[in-house]
Amino acid sequence: MKFNIALLAGDGIGPEVIDQAVKVSDAVAKKFGHDITWKPALTGAAAIDAVGEPYPDSTHDVCVAADAVLFGAIGHPRYDNDPSAKVRPEQGLLKMRKKLGLFANVRPTFTFPSLLDKSPLKQERIEGTDLVFLRELTGGIYFGEKGRRDNGETAFDNCVYTRAEVQRLAKKGFELAMTRSKKLCCVDKANVLETSRLWRETVQAMEKDYPEVEVSYEFVDAVAMRLVQWPNSYDVLITENLFGDILTDEASVISGSMGLMPSASMGTDAALFEPIHGSYPQATGLNIANPMATVLSAAMMFETAFNLPEEGKAIRNAVNKALAEGIVTEDLADGGKAYGTKEVGDWLAANI
Amino acid sequence: MKFNIALLAGDGIGPEVIDQAVKVSDAVAKKFGHDITWKPALTGAAAIDAVGEPYPDSTHDVCVAADAVLFGAIGHPRYDNDPSAKVRPEQGLLKMRKKLGLFANVRPTFTFPSLLDKSPLKQERIEGTDLVFLRELTGGIYFGEKGRRDNGETAFDNCVYTRAEVQRLAKKGFELAMTRSKKLCCVDKANVLETSRLWRETVQAMEKDYPEVEVSYEFVDAVAMRLVQWPNSYDVLITENLFGDILTDEASVISGSMGLMPSASMGTDAALFEPIHGSYPQATGLNIANPMATVLSAAMMFETAFNLPEEGKAIRNAVNKALAEGIVTEDLADGGKAYGTKEVGDWLAANI
Ligand SMILES: CC(C)[C@H](C(=O)O)[C@@H](O)C(=O)O
Ligand SMILES: CC(C)[C@H](C(=O)O)[C@@H](O)C(=O)O
Repeated sequence: MKFNIALLAGDGIGPEVIDQAVKVSDAVAKKFGHDITWKPALTGAAAIDAVGEPYPDSTHDVCVAADAVLFGAIGHPRYDNDPSAKVRPEQGLLKMRKKLGLFANVRPTFTFPSLLDKSPLKQERIEGTDLVFLRELTGGIYFGEKGRRDNGETAFDNCVYTRAEVQRLAKKGFELAMTRSKKLCCVDKANVLETSRLWRETVQAMEKDYPEVEVSYEFVDAVAMRLVQWPNSYDVLITENLFGDILTDEASVISGSMGLMPSASMGTDAALFEPIHGSYPQATGLNIANPMATVLSAAMMFETAFNLPEEGKAIRNAVNKALAEGIVTEDLADGGKAYGTKEVGDWLAANI
Repeated sequence: MKFNIALLAGDGIGPEVIDQAVKVSDAVAKKFGHDITWKPALTGAAAIDAVGEPYPDSTHDVCVAADAVLFGAIGHPRYDNDPSAKVRPEQGLLKMRKKLGLFANVRPTFTFPSLLDKSPLKQERIEGTDLVFLRELTGGIYFGEKGRRDNGETAFDNCVYTRAEVQRLAKKGFELAMTRSKKLCCVDKANVLETSRLWRETVQAMEKDYPEVEVSYEFVDAVAMRLVQWPNSYDVLITENLFGDILTDEASVISGSMGLMPSASMGTDAALFEPIHGSYPQATGLNIANPMATVLSAAMMFETAFNLPEEGKAIRNAVNKALAEGIVTEDLADGGKAYGTKEVGDWLAANI
């Protein structure tokens, strides 16, 4: 098969980790007889520097024309403590999500047995954790009307959801639950928020279409607790944009394998794959960043966007083998030999 | 001294744990020569059952007339999975906060050396944790305009903050930081929300009035991660209402001592003290609930509302002694002898 893949490396360690995912994907393409054309495009602080815009139209055109988007990371400390900055890398991210219609962010948290000791949680708490968040990504308070009144003395952000937005996200949640252990948790704050009450009533009404799925409803504050206490009690969780932002990050660190966690963002016609970690500016160019999350994001791309599970499996096997043999960057080296970003990528590509 | 204390026992285990706090407070009053008059009043599901309203005016009058409010817990499963219920216990809580002007919720998370093994976190992660959240409690998305449009198909919740609201909360944060290790973390989502940008710019402008306090600014998603990774790296954290709801609950479980965590909610003329745990309906009437969080809330009341640190200390010492000698409820008994709620209360009162 032939694929066009948009390549948005972004800022910080983005370009370095993306390079490894390209290498590994090319090895997969070679082995399975596919033909990948990579289409690099600018985004983030890198795009602001080049053209004054974090998600330029030219980049959007590349993404729209592509079969999938592979994304590194964006963000630069130059923009971090300046709430008044007019152009910010994050705006590019939000604009991209909205314009590509990427309404469902899929974020798995799972454990690698050999990395359990990296978790901040005690082993008996984290063992067996294998959950997936489906975070709504193009609605809610991120995209509602926001601004100032009273000469700037009052600020407001509006959170808005329509039933249709909840339904399309929840549908993906039910479908995913059907392929797993048929447990779905709807995370909301229905005891306070009207948008949450809409979420809850919409999901409740969908239950009859998926009689096999056991649905639970939990308040966001309760989930923030249980994620730390018994993460292995969850399977599929669906939630709105802001709650998803907070909870998926919380979930990402409990596994101890944050440098290995991939993610996908799905729309009706577009699909984007990226590691969940950030742009770690302080590690830029040092050849120390862990490329595995980005490589595993490429695996998700083969599986989800191209429907090629064998190809994804080949990547996952290579990563598991690297972990077992200690071919890892310093974050996982544990006093042992640490390999460079590039060396890990080379090894993975050679082991496809 | 003479005190009038409003006693809002609430639902579930509320009445049982409140009884122990009363007993212990009375012992303190006797020892130090104070005179406490308790003024019981209805709230929560109990108030809905009695008068159809979770925070009746009669209860508000008792609170306004009192020198402090001691609160148990509210909430009943009967209301939990019905987003459309017209009267809900939680509404009483929100109405009470608003009408009493309780704008600052003070929630410490600390560890008891003897309970470190209860934490879901590894010992080296949790050891030494001693942080305090100041959560804004009467503004934000909890109290903004909310409702439906388009025949109920669209729901909205408005988040609003004024600079004055941020200032009065931040002022308490700076002052608290001055009495501790002079580190203040402002938690927001200034890369996305306009209200967060108002928070950040307001706190930034106040920094010059507290030159000794070292202020950091962190995004809510980053804090959700670091709380699990290195909770002992935090001291005082200030945040808006919804972020505070999620993060204080997350923080409460990391210590392993949730059944021991007290809290205070402060206004200009009112102060309320309550355990952070919920109403645990399934434990109601079984004499198994841990009363220590409520008893320690009474300690906070003596210290904060009445400015009587010695009295607070007497309570804390009794609790520490009970923990050391194993006079604990089943949640802390660890296979050893478990005492009843009432027996722990009696022991604490006898040891003041
Ligand atoms: C950078 C920021 C705007 C973004 C978000 O809040 O969605 C990030 O935290 C994420 O989760 O992808
Ligand atoms: C019961 C609920 C309305 C309340 C809140 O969200 O504030 C509770 O979770 C709390 O933190 O006190």
